Amino acid sequence: MLVVMQAGASPAQIEHVLAAIHSLELTPHPMPGATRTAIGITGNTAAVDARTIEVLDGVKECIRVTKPFKLASREMHPADTAIALSMTSIGPGTFTMIAGPCSVENEAMIQQTAEFLMSNGVSLLRAGAFKPRTSPYAFQGMGIEGLEIMKRVRARTGIGIVTELLDTEDADAVEDAADIIQIGTRNMQNFALLKRVGRARKPVLLKRGMSATLEDWLMAAEYIMAGGNYQVILCERGIRTFSDHSRNTLDLSVIPPCKSLSHLPVMIDPSHGTGKRAYVPPMALASLAAGADGLLIEMHPTPDKAMSDGAQSLDFAGFKKLLDQLRGLAKPMSRTIN
Amino acid sequence: MLVVMQAGASPAQIEHVLAAIHSLELTPHPMPGATRTAIGITGNTAAVDARTIEVLDGVKECIRVTKPFKLASREMHPADTAIALSMTSIGPGTFTMIAGPCSVENEAMIQQTAEFLMSNGVSLLRAGAFKPRTSPYAFQGMGIEGLEIMKRVRARTGIGIVTELLDTEDADAVEDAADIIQIGTRNMQNFALLKRVGRARKPVLLKRGMSATLEDWLMAAEYIMAGGNYQVILCERGIRTFSDHSRNTLDLSVIPPCKSLSHLPVMIDPSHGTGKRAYVPPMALASLAAGADGLLIEMHPTPDKAMSDGAQSLDFAGFKKLLDQLRGLAKPMSRTIN
Amino acid sequence: MLVVMQAGASPAQIEHVLAAIHSLELTPHPMPGATRTAIGITGNTAAVDARTIEVLDGVKECIRVTKPFKLASREMHPADTAIALSMTSIGPGTFTMIAGPCSVENEAMIQQTAEFLMSNGVSLLRAGAFKPRTSPYAFQGMGIEGLEIMKRVRARTGIGIVTELLDTEDADAVEDAADIIQIGTRNMQNFALLKRVGRARKPVLLKRGMSATLEDWLMAAEYIMAGGNYQVILCERGIRTFSDHSRNTLDLSVIPPCKSLSHLPVMIDPSHGTGKRAYVPPMALASLAAGADGLLIEMHPTPDKAMSDGAQSLDFAGFKKLLDQLRGLAKPMSRTIN
Amino acid sequence: MLVVMQAGASPAQIEHVLAAIHSLELTPHPMPGATRTAIGITGNTAAVDARTIEVLDGVKECIRVTKPFKLASREMHPADTAIALSMTSIGPGTFTMIAGPCSVENEAMIQQTAEFLMSNGVSLLRAGAFKPRTSPYAFQGMGIEGLEIMKRVRARTGIGIVTELLDTEDADAVEDAADIIQIGTRNMQNFALLKRVGRARKPVLLKRGMSATLEDWLMAAEYIMAGGNYQVILCERGIRTFSDHSRNTLDLSVIPPCKSLSHLPVMIDPSHGTGKRAYVPPMALASLAAGADGLLIEMHPTPDKAMSDGAQSLDFAGFKKLLDQLRGLAKPMSRTIN
Repeated sequence: MLVVMQAGASPAQIEHVLAAIHSLELTPHPMPGATRTAIGITGNTAAVDARTIEVLDGVKECIRVTKPFKLASREMHPADTAIALSMTSIGPGTFTMIAGPCSVENEAMIQQTAEFLMSNGVSLLRAGAFKPRTSPYAFQGMGIEGLEIMKRVRARTGIGIVTELLDTEDADAVEDAADIIQIGTRNMQNFALLKRVGRARKPVLLKRGMSATLEDWLMAAEYIMAGGNYQVILCERGIRTFSDHSRNTLDLSVIPPCKSLSHLPVMIDPSHGTGKRAYVPPMALASLAAGADGLLIEMHPTPDKAMSDGAQSLDFAGFKKLLDQLRGLAKPMSRTIN
Repeated sequence: MLVVMQAGASPAQIEHVLAAIHSLELTPHPMPGATRTAIGITGNTAAVDARTIEVLDGVKECIRVTKPFKLASREMHPADTAIALSMTSIGPGTFTMIAGPCSVENEAMIQQTAEFLMSNGVSLLRAGAFKPRTSPYAFQGMGIEGLEIMKRVRARTGIGIVTELLDTEDADAVEDAADIIQIGTRNMQNFALLKRVGRARKPVLLKRGMSATLEDWLMAAEYIMAGGNYQVILCERGIRTFSDHSRNTLDLSVIPPCKSLSHLPVMIDPSHGTGKRAYVPPMALASLAAGADGLLIEMHPTPDKAMSDGAQSLDFAGFKKLLDQLRGLAKPMSRTIN
Repeated sequence: MLVVMQAGASPAQIEHVLAAIHSLELTPHPMPGATRTAIGITGNTAAVDARTIEVLDGVKECIRVTKPFKLASREMHPADTAIALSMTSIGPGTFTMIAGPCSVENEAMIQQTAEFLMSNGVSLLRAGAFKPRTSPYAFQGMGIEGLEIMKRVRARTGIGIVTELLDTEDADAVEDAADIIQIGTRNMQNFALLKRVGRARKPVLLKRGMSATLEDWLMAAEYIMAGGNYQVILCERGIRTFSDHSRNTLDLSVIPPCKSLSHLPVMIDPSHGTGKRAYVPPMALASLAAGADGLLIEMHPTPDKAMSDGAQSLDFAGFKKLLDQLRGLAKPMSRTIN
Repeated sequence: MLVVMQAGASPAQIEHVLAAIHSLELTPHPMPGATRTAIGITGNTAAVDARTIEVLDGVKECIRVTKPFKLASREMHPADTAIALSMTSIGPGTFTMIAGPCSVENEAMIQQTAEFLMSNGVSLLRAGAFKPRTSPYAFQGMGIEGLEIMKRVRARTGIGIVTELLDTEDADAVEDAADIIQIGTRNMQNFALLKRVGRARKPVLLKRGMSATLEDWLMAAEYIMAGGNYQVILCERGIRTFSDHSRNTLDLSVIPPCKSLSHLPVMIDPSHGTGKRAYVPPMALASLAAGADGLLIEMHPTPDKAMSDGAQSLDFAGFKKLLDQLRGLAKPMSRTIN
């Protein structure tokens, strides 16, 4: 942490700040300059609220230097994390596809989707049993019955299940049914939920909040990891900006800094990120080229009849075509699509 | 809803869209124009996803006209809503103060704060027992013990309690202790929590999400109201923008459109909105002038020793001074501070 | 400036950074810590690009401490700046109204507006002769003829003229006609234009760019002041955010930090900031309460027939009513409306 | 355009709106619905300000349907535009590289850069003679002398020159020296400058403004095209958002909607978009995969000694490596790097 004193700060004010730093059991390093004094602080500053010092007389500004996340940081864990599942793995060298409908609508469509995916070399299916909907009047998902459907389809086909958990009350049921538990964008800072999945024995796919900085996002991952669950997959799905050409602004530019700061795998959801079917394939290809570890794609047997989000869903033919294009790009990128 | 066809859409494509609209039991109104055809839709379009029609061949764009919220809308309920509590009321004609520390730290400081507020004509105290913290390593609040402290202080002083609910598991305890249940900004779209407080018999103070549009926010209120709890108070607390001069961008400009679209009271939280003690009074005065219904202010007996958010807390003297300034402004605004 | 080394930086890397700092004629202050070393830098760092050091081996991050503006900063100039004009002054103690139509449409309406303003104690009229329009097909203003009209009205009524300069080519003509030269939001970083008005002998009203941070804005003011023109008035007019309830997000929260960092007067333009007539009065009152130095208000004799921006213009009666409300608030704020 | 009446609008109010529409020589199409009436408008609505009707009594909202740009729109011009230069072309089938230093520093480095580029099959060099700098105290470019240097290097090597125009006063000189005239992000809505390059006989590379929507950007292109210059190349270079992990948020997601709405080529500037050398290659590869038409890359013989923006510049070896990676990706994408 660095404390910047005002240009006209008095020696007494500087002394007072130095004392305050000592009283926090930290070490101050005063640096007198031409126009002002700055004071570096060493020691364990992670738990200190910079603003506590910022309000002292004569202080202009207080700047945090150390990042507050540890378990999620690459500094503490230089090697890329791989997430091992019984049917596949996510992480270095691979580019993993997760696809399926927005919500479980009935057993036939989940079975049909699972068979289609398995026959195309994709072994993870996503579908929502509990749906976060902005309107209380919209379809809220099949709930527990949806989970049961996915469990039966999993038993029959061997496909892995990725599904969202919305509330701590449903955590046991979702943990039982899922191979990967999804935490949605609106719950990225639902700390009660993060603590709960920190105790789960299944990997967690953590979507970035709509207005989360990279640091906020990694701190949310830290919550899960601090609970003992190190199997966290990050997923970018579009942020809120002034830009109105698509539903959200899919932030592919977060991939390189995320890879630089953290060892966790990063997937991209271009379906929610763009909100429009036609924009999904170019953004999917760009995700691979930018260094992401995989994709979450909305796909529906008959998108125009989907109960939710059909407009951003690919049909089977569209998905197959995208898969072919991805395989073409994966080769020069030295990646394997799984 | 309005469907805009592409300039070169064929008669067959237009017919297909008309048929699709009929099949949704809605009425299409085609309007042929010089360069393109538009199709107005009447009927109950609230539950229809515009993008379902947008993906049909020849369609350029689909524009939603009717707002999807009803119970929260002024059109359905022209008069301003007043929230009646045993100790005071929030709504037309009044300007209500809610103040107190970020978190309950011990019983003495809550008692001291309550006595100070009551003696200054303020009858609502805010304090957190459960704290949403971005770091898992930060103080998470006293929990149930914090609620018990507030209940005892309430019994002794008659002050009303405003406190945050973070998780459905704690809902009964919080509902029992609180006069107003607060839903925090990070949980504005925690739909499980919204449904739960929709069944509560206490008013709910709903903070705006950091990236929530006015419509998102009113839809979150609609969730609570759709559950049968019409006692909703909106609270603006700063949004996420590129602007970095303060912790968040306190959006006072939302007050007039919010008052125009909805009948619910709107309060402002300038403490979280600015993150800095010195900026709180000018933003508090501006809130009153802009037409808000009250303030949520962080105040602490000794802010520099607060366990959280001390840098944005006023001390008692600062709060008293602000109260005097507000009373000066309230008179020409024909409002009563309570 | 503060250089943060990576956790595993080698002694040789640290030495290399120290040498690089010395070669810039600056003084490094190494601070070894538990997990990493930080290096404070003193000396004149204003002209150094932090990223030059950031790319050296072993460097994690480089943090700028000193603000790069000087002439605009309160540190260098503690007292509030007052802008003296022949007909009035802008700055401490006063709250200055500038009002008028979006564009000069004809001489009669400018004369009528000037007479109305003068008879109501307002001595500054704003109107555009050159109009920045997002569409090339929209009315672009009357140009030089518009300036001539304003000069004649000024001569007859004594009112001061505030008008926008769009291009260096028109600078002499605008400087001649105007009492205050306006630089619009889209030109806040048109550095050629800023340099030109830095040589002007008339005060400059500098609108904040739609995506300008407070620092960007003050740096734009610094451009003008570095040219020798210290008469700069800042004007907030709404920023671009995700929020869609009004045309822009009027950022009143910038007022306190702006007053803290700079000595320049700050005015608010609630007409462009909200884009809607009904939202102008509450935002105008809030501006006064928040500590602004005045308002820029769009007003038109017959707003519904205005050639541009009529929907955000008040009519004379609406303006007079607002003026009365402002006078009511100004008294408890110890301000005089002029 | 669509006018939405309030739920309780009276027949007289509706009649008044219909009359107002007729008086604008447009045709109204009333659509009575269950709760409210909507009125479609056909005719040439491009020049009508929606808010003029929005302020009429009983009107709730006015929604623009037709996009206001024409020459830039794909509807009017379905085929992709190709920009033909003497040394290369930009547009369908190709992926064009433009590279070079932030600013012209001396003749040797421009000559060296040009030779390097030509020997690697790249025939467009970018460098600034006039530099837009946020600080008045920073290096402002070599000006006319910089243009002369580039002209001599062009004559000797045959390389094409891309350079920025900042002010109408320098337009003749820049037009003379450049093969492509660049309009920078801060001048995207400098309408005087747009009009001037609309009269130029050289192609214009138009950078997206930091807070420009896609529509704003295409309207800026429309300004240039309305002046008679149809040779416009769009260039995305990062937008302003809350996200702070890189200098700006490079918005690759704009590529598909931009290609859908317009026929103009779109290039990407990952150097300014990310601000950090290490992030440039992944974003460059992603740009190709997402369907962009080329790249603008900052490259410097010795980036750590660059006079400006060295931290985001690649060195020659880094550029060559990127070029190889791009060639690997271009093949499966059926594109040729030029």
